[in-house]
Amino acid sequence: MSVPFEVISADEHDRLQELYGPLTAAVRKLVDASIRTSVDDETVRAAVASIEAVTASLDRRQHDGPRTLRHEITGRPVAWADPAIGWRNAIAPPLQIQHTETGRCWTEFTLGAAYEGPPNRVHGGICALVLDHLLGEAASEGLTIPRFTGTLTLKYLRGTPLGPLRAEAWVDRTEGFKAFARGRILDAEGVTVEAEGIFVMPAWAREAG
Amino acid sequence: MSVPFEVISADEHDRLQELYGPLTAAVRKLVDASIRTSVDDETVRAAVASIEAVTASLDRRQHDGPRTLRHEITGRPVAWADPAIGWRNAIAPPLQIQHTETGRCWTEFTLGAAYEGPPNRVHGGICALVLDHLLGEAASEGLTIPRFTGTLTLKYLRGTPLGPLRAEAWVDRTEGFKAFARGRILDAEGVTVEAEGIFVMPAWAREAG
Repeated sequence: MSVPFEVISADEHDRLQELYGPLTAAVRKLVDASIRTSVDDETVRAAVASIEAVTASLDRRQHDGPRTLRHEITGRPVAWADPAIGWRNAIAPPLQIQHTETGRCWTEFTLGAAYEGPPNRVHGGICALVLDHLLGEAASEGLTIPRFTGTLTLKYLRGTPLGPLRAEAWVDRTEGFKAFARGRILDAEGVTVEAEGIFVMPAWAREAG
Repeated sequence: MSVPFEVISADEHDRLQELYGPLTAAVRKLVDASIRTSVDDETVRAAVASIEAVTASLDRRQHDGPRTLRHEITGRPVAWADPAIGWRNAIAPPLQIQHTETGRCWTEFTLGAAYEGPPNRVHGGICALVLDHLLGEAASEGLTIPRFTGTLTLKYLRGTPLGPLRAEAWVDRTEGFKAFARGRILDAEGVTVEAEGIFVMPAWAREAG
């Protein structure tokens, strides 16, 4: 299985981001509001009707299936629907990942009510989502080399508080088709979760390489 | 740190679920529609304005901070905001977890566009979220015993397709304050991801026990 992709021009990329960025941001705020609201029943029911009308208006035309777009200048896939970094996915925090020249990546982000597990703490599975994604970015050199998660081990040192956080990842070493990546999540006091993972190039990419 | 909780009556639980269930379902469909839409720019901008108006109507009254509610009959925490199972969180698929008499748990669920990583495949971090949560449910006897994730190891055997899936978890053994849990995600062809984890009772709960 190879993955077909379309190249997207820098202008079109920016145009789409400008159009859809506010939509995603608005939906993200609505997700948060719908968790925290305690308005009267009538207002909740009116909200449902309004939301269903908006959804119907958006559903009038849809693109078909998944699209893998690559940016004409960076060569990187355009993170569109991804649940960690997608700028059209209201589930995504979204992570904005920075790549340094040495191959490390890092991101600073804020998690609110929608990501809560234990009271005032980030759900352990959300920490896993952040780290799986970030280690994958490091292992795949910014998603330019196809390397998918083989194994991932997470060590939870203490609860991760909701609020501003940082995550980092880097590649320790590579061996043939495997990259060994490490990373961590930090709050203002230091590391809360550590991760290590093995990311593997799939067979179709080895043959193509 | 102990966690205060309020008991919620079965009637009030059902009333809230009936009121907020449709709101969350509507927001979840909107998340999906906003990823897949390709309507004209004007419709997208009108959607943003409508969504912002709904959010403002819901924000008029909010409950304060996290609330841990326990169901008067089951004694289990009420999954309200949780990003894996919360029936007020549009990020959650949501998982509806079944507990068997032998302590195993399982869930059948469907993941769509909002959970996609590689084309047509579930994001590895979303598999991690599902398994972290399900192993935690098994290890904590349905969240009635406080045991939080200590370590979690995930082994990705192959890509997990979008669509209908099943996940299972059980406790292998317990040792003092630790429970050793295992689990997996399956599609129609068999296992796609395996997990094992150590779940640990926090110090405050040991003292209280």
